[in-house]
Amino acid sequence: MSGVLYGVGVGPGDPELMTLKAARLIGAAPVVAYPVLPGAESFARTIAADVIAPGAVEIAIEVPMTTARGPAQAAYDDGAARIALALEGGQDVACLCEGDPFFYGSFMYLFARLADRFPVEVVPGVTSLTACAAVAGRPLVARNEALVVLPGPLDDDRLRARLEGAQTLAILKVGRHMGRLKRLLVAEGLADNAVYVERATLAEERRLPLLEAPEPAPYFSMILVTKGADPWL
Amino acid sequence: MSGVLYGVGVGPGDPELMTLKAARLIGAAPVVAYPVLPGAESFARTIAADVIAPGAVEIAIEVPMTTARGPAQAAYDDGAARIALALEGGQDVACLCEGDPFFYGSFMYLFARLADRFPVEVVPGVTSLTACAAVAGRPLVARNEALVVLPGPLDDDRLRARLEGAQTLAILKVGRHMGRLKRLLVAEGLADNAVYVERATLAEERRLPLLEAPEPAPYFSMILVTKGADPWL
Repeated sequence: MSGVLYGVGVGPGDPELMTLKAARLIGAAPVVAYPVLPGAESFARTIAADVIAPGAVEIAIEVPMTTARGPAQAAYDDGAARIALALEGGQDVACLCEGDPFFYGSFMYLFARLADRFPVEVVPGVTSLTACAAVAGRPLVARNEALVVLPGPLDDDRLRARLEGAQTLAILKVGRHMGRLKRLLVAEGLADNAVYVERATLAEERRLPLLEAPEPAPYFSMILVTKGADPWL
Repeated sequence: MSGVLYGVGVGPGDPELMTLKAARLIGAAPVVAYPVLPGAESFARTIAADVIAPGAVEIAIEVPMTTARGPAQAAYDDGAARIALALEGGQDVACLCEGDPFFYGSFMYLFARLADRFPVEVVPGVTSLTACAAVAGRPLVARNEALVVLPGPLDDDRLRARLEGAQTLAILKVGRHMGRLKRLLVAEGLADNAVYVERATLAEERRLPLLEAPEPAPYFSMILVTKGADPWL
């Protein structure tokens, strides 16, 4: 009997926003795995630290910081091989994923490499999307409104084409693109409806009007544009 | 000192997908509130049932099943007034919200009525969006992919205009619109990439290829169209 691979969403940052199921599975796992940048702490591991069992084996998958695919693929190949060894030995492995495993989560790279060979269960988590909305006090969508989620690195033409028609826009992965994104949203007449949130649900969280947001912004930040949500029913 | 109103996401259905914070706040609340259809059980209350404190006062906000705004507005006005009474008396109130309070959640109608008069905290929850992706085994979005969330009741022209350009589409509130949505997705060449999920994370959950989905579908169902997610990095 092989072990089970759990892809566990640990939520947006506040450890208390882990689900009961995430806390149970992580606490029971003899092996935990997580991706990490070289020389950095794993954010997912930090969130889950208090529920990891003492003595659990940890598989840190060191993913190089590069836009080239080859080195990252090699890192996930290697991480998947180490996880496979544990699963073949009958041990369950909990892979820690900030937010949700399938919402811009790197767990999907392990899922693609392992799901045809081992039992895998994905445990959904609270995403940064709804965490930022909660912190900003901005309802995302109601009734028949549409929501568009866009990564900030998309070029202006692609972003602009997707700005229309949706009542609510969320722009993730803002980082060094903040200056360009501000100019784009101003030009499109959307800046007044836009709010900036960084490190939502952590002690150091901040929310600001878009035009006061820092440039560059930190990686864990988001722009919410709520044009339509009409909470008055 | 007035009490605090907590808008608490209780997740998509499995009670274990409540967050630790949701369980703590609901368990400590002297008053819990939730919307309910006349003669029906509240889904949010069912999810949270095991953590509601014995002896907690319950405010059931009976919302009539109608597309007319007036009766629903009156119901939320009345519910907000009853919650306000408890808050003025110094009692905290936990309002139970299936999924997340700000993601198509009726909590926003109470938020709009009460947030300027009382301290309100919104506690994000796991949405049906990522729960359905987990159940379907379909990563939603990776890297620089865009996600579009659409309500099924939108008419064909509005839906069609939003189908382009996004790697991943999620169509919620499918219900009686299923037949029309199938025809639209077939005509747009998207049916092969589409999967149907109902009652995700509950014991009776089902996932089916789109064309095998029931007509009408239950209210708690979703269509996921994943055109692009390329999990091989």
